[in-house]
Amino acid sequence: MPKIIDHHKRKVRIAEATWKVIVDEGIEQASVRKIAKAAGLSTGSLRHYFSSQSELLRFSMEMVSERVIERAKAREYSEDISPLEFLTEGVYEVLPVNEERKIEMEVWLAFSAKVLVDSTLRELSNKVYSDMHQGLKNVVLALQSLQYAKDGLDLELEANRLHAIVDGMAMHHLLNPEHFTHDEMIQTLKYHLQSLCK
Amino acid sequence: MPKIIDHHKRKVRIAEATWKVIVDEGIEQASVRKIAKAAGLSTGSLRHYFSSQSELLRFSMEMVSERVIERAKAREYSEDISPLEFLTEGVYEVLPVNEERKIEMEVWLAFSAKVLVDSTLRELSNKVYSDMHQGLKNVVLALQSLQYAKDGLDLELEANRLHAIVDGMAMHHLLNPEHFTHDEMIQTLKYHLQSLCK
Repeated sequence: MPKIIDHHKRKVRIAEATWKVIVDEGIEQASVRKIAKAAGLSTGSLRHYFSSQSELLRFSMEMVSERVIERAKAREYSEDISPLEFLTEGVYEVLPVNEERKIEMEVWLAFSAKVLVDSTLRELSNKVYSDMHQGLKNVVLALQSLQYAKDGLDLELEANRLHAIVDGMAMHHLLNPEHFTHDEMIQTLKYHLQSLCK
Repeated sequence: MPKIIDHHKRKVRIAEATWKVIVDEGIEQASVRKIAKAAGLSTGSLRHYFSSQSELLRFSMEMVSERVIERAKAREYSEDISPLEFLTEGVYEVLPVNEERKIEMEVWLAFSAKVLVDSTLRELSNKVYSDMHQGLKNVVLALQSLQYAKDGLDLELEANRLHAIVDGMAMHHLLNPEHFTHDEMIQTLKYHLQSLCK
């Protein structure tokens, strides 16, 4: 019988090994050889997924992005919490609130710095930007549909603002966790969302 | 007569050459040799300023930071514009509103991604964070002193929020200038500052 390889499982395993190497050593130290070792695979089988450093970063960022979208889709409203709490917790999906999400955001930051000098990454960068932007615009839209939002908010500008706050805070907490703590990040987000409400 | 070297001028020349190499080729391609060539100096005289890649990034970021602080200090209020416009334009000092500031912000983004994996850069990163934070807190304080600000704003949370908006927008405009244009960046900032006012 031919050996059956679970491609999805393998992809996740490679993505996690890749993130680990990027987070521990930085993107420019992340070689196919090191990642293969961390994932317990041959370098040959890794070439199937990426053959260069650009491909590696693209692959890592795609995996982060897929994971965030899957988590967001899997969210279900339960009546234990208020709709506003539910929306606020939705934004936590894209903030470094725990170890798993910190790793995702570190990959995103390494990827972002690289986009500036590697135009082959720009298309994915645009996609990540648009997905995030739409997701956060939906938060503002939901506040409006629920009649929580103040009158006269400008939806486009509110989406720009929330998106900037989320990415700015993610960066500040990753880089300066003592100056901008986990609790301050949560409190600032709640303060902002509250300021949009009546 | 001994040759007199203008150290400040030379430092600026080296900083500009360094930024150019980082912006054109990315931080991991920026070697002492390349920068020396771009600055028209010997590699030996560059070693005086930095001897490793970490030193190089630290030096570049310090120069960016000094330049921003000097510009901010040199600002003088003239009655042609309103105090609110003056404050708003102060925030432009730390946004990628023109080519010069785009380069500064690209250095900052490359530096930021590197901080995650190079703990020797953390001290400078904390200093840059604190300087910026204080500067932006001063904007909120000024709105309050001028009696423009709404009652009941939380100064600490407003400083966190404005700081996140500024860095988030800087990043979005650098990475996705077609999706998040220069005009949207300015408009979003004005919208935010206006939302703090009565």
